[in-house]
Amino acid sequence: MGRIFNFSAGPAVLPEEVLREAADEMLDYHGSGMSVMEMSHRSKVFEDIIQGAERDIRDLMGIPDNYKVLFLQGGASQQFAMIPMNLMKNKVADYIVTGQWAKKAFAEASLYGKANAVASSADQTFSYIPDCSDLPISEDADYVYICENNTIYGTKYKTLPNTKGKTLVADASSCFLSEPVDVTRYGLLFGGVQKNVGPAGMVIVIIREDLVTEDVLPGTPTMLRYLTHVKENSLYNTPPAYGIYMCGKVFKWIKAMGGLDAMKQRNEEKAKILYDYLDASQLFKGTVRKEDRSLMNVPFVTGNEELDAKFVKESKAAGLENLKGHRTVGGMRASIYNAMPKEGVEQLVAFMKRFEEEARG
Amino acid sequence: MGRIFNFSAGPAVLPEEVLREAADEMLDYHGSGMSVMEMSHRSKVFEDIIQGAERDIRDLMGIPDNYKVLFLQGGASQQFAMIPMNLMKNKVADYIVTGQWAKKAFAEASLYGKANAVASSADQTFSYIPDCSDLPISEDADYVYICENNTIYGTKYKTLPNTKGKTLVADASSCFLSEPVDVTRYGLLFGGVQKNVGPAGMVIVIIREDLVTEDVLPGTPTMLRYLTHVKENSLYNTPPAYGIYMCGKVFKWIKAMGGLDAMKQRNEEKAKILYDYLDASQLFKGTVRKEDRSLMNVPFVTGNEELDAKFVKESKAAGLENLKGHRTVGGMRASIYNAMPKEGVEQLVAFMKRFEEEARG
Repeated sequence: MGRIFNFSAGPAVLPEEVLREAADEMLDYHGSGMSVMEMSHRSKVFEDIIQGAERDIRDLMGIPDNYKVLFLQGGASQQFAMIPMNLMKNKVADYIVTGQWAKKAFAEASLYGKANAVASSADQTFSYIPDCSDLPISEDADYVYICENNTIYGTKYKTLPNTKGKTLVADASSCFLSEPVDVTRYGLLFGGVQKNVGPAGMVIVIIREDLVTEDVLPGTPTMLRYLTHVKENSLYNTPPAYGIYMCGKVFKWIKAMGGLDAMKQRNEEKAKILYDYLDASQLFKGTVRKEDRSLMNVPFVTGNEELDAKFVKESKAAGLENLKGHRTVGGMRASIYNAMPKEGVEQLVAFMKRFEEEARG
Repeated sequence: MGRIFNFSAGPAVLPEEVLREAADEMLDYHGSGMSVMEMSHRSKVFEDIIQGAERDIRDLMGIPDNYKVLFLQGGASQQFAMIPMNLMKNKVADYIVTGQWAKKAFAEASLYGKANAVASSADQTFSYIPDCSDLPISEDADYVYICENNTIYGTKYKTLPNTKGKTLVADASSCFLSEPVDVTRYGLLFGGVQKNVGPAGMVIVIIREDLVTEDVLPGTPTMLRYLTHVKENSLYNTPPAYGIYMCGKVFKWIKAMGGLDAMKQRNEEKAKILYDYLDASQLFKGTVRKEDRSLMNVPFVTGNEELDAKFVKESKAAGLENLKGHRTVGGMRASIYNAMPKEGVEQLVAFMKRFEEEARG
């Protein structure tokens, strides 16, 4: 069997070229006589890999010099604790709750201080992004937190919230590197890499250097202090070395494709094919308010659970995999990250058309 | 260039057969049409991988049913905090300090309660394991902590300490799966996998189930509670999926080689070749008290720094890599983990003999 089209929400499809290179280099990376998995993280050859990866992501995102880039473990879930432990100096933070991940981050912050839910879209099953132009931001808030793209519900902030001068902290896991971003709008921006960038087991944190201090909450583990990792350039302890190598390859792939402007254009084209069909279909419908639609995660339903299940089953048989919606919401979801080729989306829509014709008899 | 012999202390050499399989499966794992890096961690195909890995390590180590096996992120360094945060109910723990990693674990525990150094070998640069038959164990100690094999100094406990009934907690990173072990002697046993088992970015924790409770120190992050991961079988959040897959392959490789008894025999044979030569050599000498020598990490010196540097340089040119001692101790160190073939050790000793002959003129 050949490669299928993988619409998984994460871990997710990676560029085939990148996987081919990784396979070719598995036993001997660039004449080193070793796999990258076998290299000392203190060796010159690995230093080149990690430094190259940092350089390339800085280039791609236009990260200013006063921001640090960290390659850490523990995923977004660990950031949910690390952020308040490091940034909640006043023990107050404002959270905008637009889905389950924002809710989890909010709950975790509540362990460390007063977390306020200053806005939420829970009233309509997180199918939209609330108006964030004039929120009741707390006067002593250490930061305002958002989940920028909501993987489960398929929404995305098209405008960043007005934080009224407070530091913006964003979980950008599922839109990371999918379009250009103005890093200076954020105090801290992070992404679990297993959606748009690489294999699970790593999170990339981009943090403004004035937020990296020794002044953390009492009891913060050494490994959960940003300063620990900033001081040692992500080499305080053995890093997720193979993940860094794979992400570095994906950074190079994005550069070769034309960078984040080109990625955005490509992602818009792909999403348009699917959304246009959903808007025209008599059977399928998108579940998200149009102006808040994500370019990355596209949830849709038929309105009939049996038919949804039939769709998931038959699409899988047709080589279109992982189209089942998140276990908490049901229906379908197509995640069409950077590495999903346009052809995959075209085949999905062609399949949906056939399915619709059959269903309507 | 072909494969070299890699004596790195970690990340370290992996079995060539395992790397070949991983390369072959990179684009399409067992007809799934996907790389393991691209798979949803909630998919059936990945479930088989993680459950198979757990089954195989349980088989290999004879792990009783009342012990949980966890595949976590953050390495040993994160365990240094996780252990006291979860186990220090009385806020007292006893540490045996036999090297830098034990020292770091001790320092981290001191953030959370009273950590006592009940024994140490710092007086002789950690070149031996202290007598642990009758230590002043604290009456209210929640546990007694050891680093079982000291990677930097090349020592290993041949007898576990008498904990006087207290729970034994061990960092077994650099001797993990190198020989049979009686798991019931430990309350908690963990190993960073990047030495004997797989790619960096994962730690395996084996914990007796009565130690997994909701009663953790206040402020313990959700991700740092053992209970979080026990409840969800290491799938609370996206796990280091590719690492689990690679470790699973290494478990199968060890089984095919005859299991941990065979590993021990093989490791003893390899270590004997090197130690016998060190004991006979006029130039090189081992730095560790004989009865405490590790089978995994073999430090040695010439007694002359210039000659040491010459050795490291020339051995590298001869395809014997990463023989430089840890940056904090100097000299040389050969790490000869499970995956180092006997031929690698033989070639090292042959090279040392030639070097010695030349040096003596």
